[in-house]
Amino acid sequence: MRHIKLLIEYDGTNYHGWQIQPKAVTIQQVIEEKISLMTKQPERLVAAGRTDAGVHALGQVASFRTSSSIPIKAFQRGLNSLLPADIIIKSAAEAEENFHPQFGAKRKTYRYVILNRQLPSAVYCRYSWHIPTLLDLPAMKRAAGNLLGRQDFSSFQGADPDAPDPVREVFMAEWSTEKKDLLLFTIEADGFLKHMVRNIVGTLVEVGRGKISGEEFEKIIERRDRRLAGPTAPPQGLFLLEVKY
Amino acid sequence: MRHIKLLIEYDGTNYHGWQIQPKAVTIQQVIEEKISLMTKQPERLVAAGRTDAGVHALGQVASFRTSSSIPIKAFQRGLNSLLPADIIIKSAAEAEENFHPQFGAKRKTYRYVILNRQLPSAVYCRYSWHIPTLLDLPAMKRAAGNLLGRQDFSSFQGADPDAPDPVREVFMAEWSTEKKDLLLFTIEADGFLKHMVRNIVGTLVEVGRGKISGEEFEKIIERRDRRLAGPTAPPQGLFLLEVKY
Repeated sequence: MRHIKLLIEYDGTNYHGWQIQPKAVTIQQVIEEKISLMTKQPERLVAAGRTDAGVHALGQVASFRTSSSIPIKAFQRGLNSLLPADIIIKSAAEAEENFHPQFGAKRKTYRYVILNRQLPSAVYCRYSWHIPTLLDLPAMKRAAGNLLGRQDFSSFQGADPDAPDPVREVFMAEWSTEKKDLLLFTIEADGFLKHMVRNIVGTLVEVGRGKISGEEFEKIIERRDRRLAGPTAPPQGLFLLEVKY
Repeated sequence: MRHIKLLIEYDGTNYHGWQIQPKAVTIQQVIEEKISLMTKQPERLVAAGRTDAGVHALGQVASFRTSSSIPIKAFQRGLNSLLPADIIIKSAAEAEENFHPQFGAKRKTYRYVILNRQLPSAVYCRYSWHIPTLLDLPAMKRAAGNLLGRQDFSSFQGADPDAPDPVREVFMAEWSTEKKDLLLFTIEADGFLKHMVRNIVGTLVEVGRGKISGEEFEKIIERRDRRLAGPTAPPQGLFLLEVKY
């Protein structure tokens, strides 16, 4: 059996997330259908991570095993001609037999985009969280520094029946700005708990609003209690940027 | 009667253009409905220009006359809460009695965005024309220089039963780049003929592909014959940026 690895970009707006569900259109389902159209066989994709409904990806990684002899370049071209415009196969490559998109991932990077100005935007509304009150960016930058290192992130874990070990190592957690009123939060870690990035952003925004102090943010991490942290930031500001192996 | 001027941003993807049509959802119709909801009266908007289906605006201007006494700030806030997320009222102001959004406009600026790289983009597909072959940008820049000044632009005029005088003055026609593979064409003129920007871009792209030479581009303008120019660029790359009075 061949093992084929795909690098995928998608606009998650019109999908109920990555993972296949019985009664909703998902990105996994759409791509699997198009692969099967090409190979004439049922195919099953395994991804680096399941993005939630409305979340985007610039560098999702997924792989599938197939007995098809379609050349690798033809897979990419064929899929891109069959897929809707909001899903793109950025590359396709033969993978090692033992490659696993999820368990083999060493680091993942996410970005969260906030539009911080009084007026919403008709163009950015699909790709950002609009916050009309001016946020205290220096306070948010200082608080984000507390996320670095190997820590128990239970405080930022969404309800998850299969909750894994909540310890993760964060290598980067930085705020930057673009075009004056776009605030970009970039976070790289060896893995993420359910809703972890959105819960972190929701809590950092409370710091930016002055509702949680820098010291309180530190304690929220230490206490490992989800009830102390802020609300979950909405999905449309979140992008899976890159997965490193 | 009060006369109220609106500055409007919209994502044109889901609309059949600005102007009201019998059987399609248009931006004018949606805004008029929401104004009427507020004033309890039928209201009619007049815009600076009619954008085509799929074309976006960051700075469309429109006005309406009303006997309503709703305060001006409440108009903006109320409309923004009633309108869908892809239409935003950026400002509302009392206008002079004789202000006319279309006939009073002295200059309009449009921008056209091309994504020039082999791979399409899931995120930019709504806001750009994807051209996978590398375009000769210096040639396109040189050719664009020929558009400047007061000229007859019949060569770039779409079929129009009410075709006006085809002479327009172009003050700026420039290509710039952003993020390496986004090509931005910005054009400012005292007015535009039907499909003029899209026909100019479609023809400049033929220059960029090496199919039309710089000298031929000059002649296309001089000949005033639409059949000599290139194809009409698709609508989703076009933005109405600004109207000056």
